Amino acid sequence: MSANWQIIEGGITAAMGYKACGVAAGIKHPGAERRDVALVVSDVVASVAGVFTTNRVQAAPVKLDREKVTLGHARAILVNSGNANACTGAIGMQNAKKMCQAAAEAIGGSEEDVLVCSTGVIGVQLPMDRVEIGIRKAAAELSSDGGDDASLAIMTTDTVPKSVAKAIEIEGKRVVIGGMAKGSGMIEPNMATMLGFLTTDVQVDPHDLQALLKRAADESFNRITIDGDQSTNDTLLMMANGASGVRIGRDHASWETFERTVCDCCRSLARMMVADGEGATKFVTVHVSGARSDSDAQRAAKAIAHSSLFKTACFGEDPNWGRVMAAAGDSGAEVDETQVVIQFDAERAYCRGEVADPDTLKRLEAVMKKKEFEVTVDLGIGEGAATVLTCDCSLDYVRINSEYTT
Amino acid sequence: MSANWQIIEGGITAAMGYKACGVAAGIKHPGAERRDVALVVSDVVASVAGVFTTNRVQAAPVKLDREKVTLGHARAILVNSGNANACTGAIGMQNAKKMCQAAAEAIGGSEEDVLVCSTGVIGVQLPMDRVEIGIRKAAAELSSDGGDDASLAIMTTDTVPKSVAKAIEIEGKRVVIGGMAKGSGMIEPNMATMLGFLTTDVQVDPHDLQALLKRAADESFNRITIDGDQSTNDTLLMMANGASGVRIGRDHASWETFERTVCDCCRSLARMMVADGEGATKFVTVHVSGARSDSDAQRAAKAIAHSSLFKTACFGEDPNWGRVMAAAGDSGAEVDETQVVIQFDAERAYCRGEVADPDTLKRLEAVMKKKEFEVTVDLGIGEGAATVLTCDCSLDYVRINSEYTT
Repeated sequence: MSANWQIIEGGITAAMGYKACGVAAGIKHPGAERRDVALVVSDVVASVAGVFTTNRVQAAPVKLDREKVTLGHARAILVNSGNANACTGAIGMQNAKKMCQAAAEAIGGSEEDVLVCSTGVIGVQLPMDRVEIGIRKAAAELSSDGGDDASLAIMTTDTVPKSVAKAIEIEGKRVVIGGMAKGSGMIEPNMATMLGFLTTDVQVDPHDLQALLKRAADESFNRITIDGDQSTNDTLLMMANGASGVRIGRDHASWETFERTVCDCCRSLARMMVADGEGATKFVTVHVSGARSDSDAQRAAKAIAHSSLFKTACFGEDPNWGRVMAAAGDSGAEVDETQVVIQFDAERAYCRGEVADPDTLKRLEAVMKKKEFEVTVDLGIGEGAATVLTCDCSLDYVRINSEYTT
Repeated sequence: MSANWQIIEGGITAAMGYKACGVAAGIKHPGAERRDVALVVSDVVASVAGVFTTNRVQAAPVKLDREKVTLGHARAILVNSGNANACTGAIGMQNAKKMCQAAAEAIGGSEEDVLVCSTGVIGVQLPMDRVEIGIRKAAAELSSDGGDDASLAIMTTDTVPKSVAKAIEIEGKRVVIGGMAKGSGMIEPNMATMLGFLTTDVQVDPHDLQALLKRAADESFNRITIDGDQSTNDTLLMMANGASGVRIGRDHASWETFERTVCDCCRSLARMMVADGEGATKFVTVHVSGARSDSDAQRAAKAIAHSSLFKTACFGEDPNWGRVMAAAGDSGAEVDETQVVIQFDAERAYCRGEVADPDTLKRLEAVMKKKEFEVTVDLGIGEGAATVLTCDCSLDYVRINSEYTT
């Protein structure tokens, strides 16, 4: 069930009281024109919440932000692409702090209120001279319609920028939630290589905001998989600055509407990531029902969505449903093949021991030729259900990832 | 430490008292000349042991063999390739039983003593008319030097047959362990899509044989990964017929030598599988040491060996060691990046917070240009260690798997 929101333009700067921009600082390629520094600034200090990678190896900016978010307030988010500042030791941590200092000076704020994110190659020190010039340049170019430029500057192997904004009415006033994200490889449930940023002009207590953001992440970014690798840098941040004059909390009559709209924004961004999955030619929804429990359903759905054999079959438009069954069976979920029903869209591939005949296989093939289709697996033994979004594994996925740093 | 064995010819029929053959029955392609039925027969009833897939969805022949192996004796192993007889319901089980009956009749033995294995596409019923003709043909062509033909008949996407035979001396007598295997995709620790068969002319009690085979599988086939998918059909079977006149058991002075030789045979076959990994251009050994525990080491080694990003980097000969660190960090193993040392062969990529300089990166690139190299990760926090073998993820991997059934 979606909230009654209206889609609007502007992305991360759609909400009132935010400015942003994206500039080229030569981090991706020295001297090149590709934008690689983004800055998002709230006019006033805002409430802040964050959800971070669960990888044991965490990039310097992740360690830094994790601390700062506990303070509950922030004014700016600084992002660079082209370098992850991960596995960079003490120097990397110094550099992350320097980035926050430089941004704080440039916007005239406190270092404490600047969060920093990095994405790109691991294990290379940042070119700090270029980064600092980029930060000053970004601060000088901040604009209330700079959301689009910012969404370009956070891209790595993404082929399209990803942003979203939705407006709802609370207490007769229009309030806005906007956002942007990056990520198209190294994507796996539990905060894969992705950066996501949300802003709203509603005023929200940091504790409520944190609980809300965690839930939104679980329902969106944690339900997608591209290649099963979880990164060292995944971060989702949200600022709430109160510029609309509306203040709400968990007990407010419109809280549910607000919460649902934030979740919908995250789901929109998550879908955009899967659709832009590295080398993806197919958008595949894997829905498992009839599982012993919801967690069993999620286990099975993730295993299917993550199976290299299933994903290459999708690329090959090959209705090899046996790979779906094999992945479910190997997921750890309870599976009794005599109770399972597998469908590709409305076409039944397997029904409790009965396999598709050649005519059905032809219809299944037709389903797989579509850009987008749904694989549903009814395990037939309980009430548990889960949905995971994924894409196919194509020749281009291998091309992109075998040529990334060199 | 390896046993003092001698490599010999003959594969599955190298040991005394075994005959085998491989014939074309038109299961892979009707009318085609590719061998797809293999039969291995002991002159006398032998002790038998088996290790099977842990996938919850199991092919009919797996269910059948699992039961039969508990009896502890067998005389023949019948294998077809081209069809997995998995997810084929009651008809599939009837067909598996019919195959055993047909083989028992053709060789003049008891149905109880015939084990059956199938490998190939899931969810399609076997063409039983052709299968039964193939079984009779195979029984008529059994030969004591038919091991090579048998190893050809069990192949699916394998590009080369895989067999091994080693001779050792026990009580002054020469005894032999021979084997063959198939598998080059859907390979993942815990008995991935692989079939493996071993024969020996030593006499061994079924209980001792079962314990030995389990250990050998853990040290070999369960330490390799190609694409992380575990199949519905994985089976490792071993027959021991006593034709050498040597009888040994757990308490025998030569037990350890025998056990080590069986393990070595399994390791040889496992290495051949990885080297023949679908589309593989690199053979990569991932060794993790200094872990909190052996199981932590194995978790980290498997995660690295299984990471799509690491495997595509190997294909691209790109010394992107950050992907090694990210995979280890996300494995669930305890990882403290300030203690980690990562090497590619003898070249250090990362050492406790210090990253490789451009000169080192060039030397790392040279390592990755080799056909075979080792990635070692010292976690630096304990004594746990583990080794996992894998291959790269190439364009051909995707090509092979997107075109498999169609």
